Amino acid sequence: MTRIVYLNGDYVPEQEARVSVFDRGFLFADAVYEVTAVLNGKLLENDGHIARLLRSCRELNLALPVTPDALEAIQRELIARNHLREGAVYLQLSRGSTGDREFDFPPAGTPPTLALFTQARSVINHAKAISGIRVVTLEDIRWHRRDIKTVGLLAPCLAKEFAHVQGADDAFLVEDGLITEGSSCNAWIVTASGTLVTRPLSNDILHGITRRSLLELAKNHAIPFEERAFSVEEAYAAREAFISSATTFIWPVVNIDGRTVGDGAPGPVTRALRAIYVEMALRATA
Amino acid sequence: MTRIVYLNGDYVPEQEARVSVFDRGFLFADAVYEVTAVLNGKLLENDGHIARLLRSCRELNLALPVTPDALEAIQRELIARNHLREGAVYLQLSRGSTGDREFDFPPAGTPPTLALFTQARSVINHAKAISGIRVVTLEDIRWHRRDIKTVGLLAPCLAKEFAHVQGADDAFLVEDGLITEGSSCNAWIVTASGTLVTRPLSNDILHGITRRSLLELAKNHAIPFEERAFSVEEAYAAREAFISSATTFIWPVVNIDGRTVGDGAPGPVTRALRAIYVEMALRATA
Repeated sequence: MTRIVYLNGDYVPEQEARVSVFDRGFLFADAVYEVTAVLNGKLLENDGHIARLLRSCRELNLALPVTPDALEAIQRELIARNHLREGAVYLQLSRGSTGDREFDFPPAGTPPTLALFTQARSVINHAKAISGIRVVTLEDIRWHRRDIKTVGLLAPCLAKEFAHVQGADDAFLVEDGLITEGSSCNAWIVTASGTLVTRPLSNDILHGITRRSLLELAKNHAIPFEERAFSVEEAYAAREAFISSATTFIWPVVNIDGRTVGDGAPGPVTRALRAIYVEMALRATA
Repeated sequence: MTRIVYLNGDYVPEQEARVSVFDRGFLFADAVYEVTAVLNGKLLENDGHIARLLRSCRELNLALPVTPDALEAIQRELIARNHLREGAVYLQLSRGSTGDREFDFPPAGTPPTLALFTQARSVINHAKAISGIRVVTLEDIRWHRRDIKTVGLLAPCLAKEFAHVQGADDAFLVEDGLITEGSSCNAWIVTASGTLVTRPLSNDILHGITRRSLLELAKNHAIPFEERAFSVEEAYAAREAFISSATTFIWPVVNIDGRTVGDGAPGPVTRALRAIYVEMALRATA
């Protein structure tokens, strides 16, 4: 089946979804994006993703060409047209094109480029959610506004590639000896005393929608947590570790730099928190 | 006249030069580029640009789909088809598309995307080469591999926008109190003793082709120079300052953060070095 993609007001077969080589998304990475998980054919935590998109737009003085409600209608229409039950809807907004290449922002009124597409994938029963993943630590070389969700993603691509070459699944990024986050996810540990730890919000990390929900769920379930930066050594010594993102929810981390985390199997706090999140997600999309 | 653009083997009208929304240049900024100046309808210092392109490709494990000679033939063909006398040829190579979005590098053999286009503009007699420009200093928030010429250029776009809002033309980027470079150019000062100073090569700055030639010309003309980092305070106190890049050659900097550089007019060392470079450039493209 040919996937149907949304591009600037039109629903087109994926092969026909093309943008100008002069689009600022292509020439300057002058674009932001969001990925919303889909369960049971419904959007999960989409309000959070749209709110973050609006924040990214404000930070970059980018104008969303449709209302948030109209955007969600497009997401839903794509889910319907592509018969998507489980997976994600990706959306990207670039500053468009003036038909030439100039660093300067284009004149006001230049139409931005809005593209959305669906991706079918296993979310709830993904193999890595059960087995866990291996990560390697790597210097965080990204720009210093990681709170803005831009398509400037070459550093994360390189980090994942480096991890694969090392026989790992992903990377934990490190700055000044402290873990910032994963290459496209937030990073968490569970200390010896059973406390969840994840880095506090700042320009150093993405403000994860799943991260926020997990903290809320932890609070409601009386799981102790701290928002603070943690070191590589602390991660090595952790009882458990995991990553969170919109489309993985939680994946256990069972090995860091070749060192087994805990007993090498996904730990009880990680599994419990994932179960709590999955329950919330299934209820929200029932 | 409709510009003719090169895209993956075809010469097409600019309106028809379109890439997939799944192109990794659009989704991940997984692409590199070069800009070669054109004078008298001929490429200037193109060997340096192609060598740097090959270096960028090596650093990112990107495969150039044509030989360097074939690439230069495309550049020349575009100059001829567009009757370009003065300006630039832009080229961009992205890691192509597998028809979906995955961070992981695509399978070997996935065709990259190669796009080239011309831009007509005044180079030799540009008004700013005569009048000079005003710059503001700004924190350098870019990623830490600025030696690789990728399209991850949102930070430079934001820096230029910030400069414009402040009534300036461009920005000098600052890290740990030291100027790295301009937003899309190398930065230079002339000290009170008449010595040229520019930051040495590292991952912190772009390895400018014009920068290298200027150092060579300075040597040949017995203009004293030092390759070392310099501070914002040193720039404020400099006798002269300027930027260099492929399409500006040298533009004097006459004001930094509202403070006049020297007597506020382009200085003698700057003007002399520009004249020497222009002479070389005109001879090379005669």
